[in-house]
Amino acid sequence: MTRAGEAGPATACTVCRGGWPQAADRIATLGESAVYLHDDQFFPGWSVLVLRRHATELFELEPDERARLMSEVSGVAHALKLVFDARKINYALFGNLVPHVHWHVIPRLPTDPAPLEAVFAIPHQPVRLGEVERSDRIAGIRRHLER
Amino acid sequence: MTRAGEAGPATACTVCRGGWPQAADRIATLGESAVYLHDDQFFPGWSVLVLRRHATELFELEPDERARLMSEVSGVAHALKLVFDARKINYALFGNLVPHVHWHVIPRLPTDPAPLEAVFAIPHQPVRLGEVERSDRIAGIRRHLER
Repeated sequence: MTRAGEAGPATACTVCRGGWPQAADRIATLGESAVYLHDDQFFPGWSVLVLRRHATELFELEPDERARLMSEVSGVAHALKLVFDARKINYALFGNLVPHVHWHVIPRLPTDPAPLEAVFAIPHQPVRLGEVERSDRIAGIRRHLER
Repeated sequence: MTRAGEAGPATACTVCRGGWPQAADRIATLGESAVYLHDDQFFPGWSVLVLRRHATELFELEPDERARLMSEVSGVAHALKLVFDARKINYALFGNLVPHVHWHVIPRLPTDPAPLEAVFAIPHQPVRLGEVERSDRIAGIRRHLER
């Protein structure tokens, strides 16, 4: 089985080739997934869980594998709620552009500019953090995930 | 335990009060959720799975309950793929407006007007089906779910 970010056969999948997400954004490697800080931090704490093997739909996963993945999604959501004092967590699996299974887990904060709207409906300039701030944010989430 | 659509104590939750979704849009009642055809059928087959008990986050669910819910989400996604010949399924749990756990499960078709975009980023006039067409669509999905 080829795991994302590991050497494997040539593939057309950006994730399996290690092209996205960036290794520097990795928060933690979990059993079925690896979790990264999303490039765009307009919504602080926006994280992405990438399935470690290649699949494109939930119904391609074995039932136990799907349950473990969703337990990891749930654990990351809980950590993000605590770290960012979120009022709600948003969860999305699309794959329209990059079909490899990846979950967006997005804390919605009390300071949210449009709290009732879907993140994807809110036009904004992407926020790219500087290296120090990004590392601090990653470390903060990682500490909560390890508890 | 109060179940959505059943008589229960007075509550501020629209879903628990039976205010949404409409009973006429119900496709099937599953173990942990009930699945409905979404009001807006601009994306044909857009369905909504509502958790039968009240909760607002994945991490509030018991592990087995969450696994069963996600198995139901997965089964509905598979049925929608078959019925609508979808090229990809989108899955989203937001709850910004109605926090009661509900999953949007949205087949993306080869005829999709913006296949790489999130549904929530595509401005459109909602499509409300007439009664006969809506009933036919509900019945078609139900037949595949029962297989």
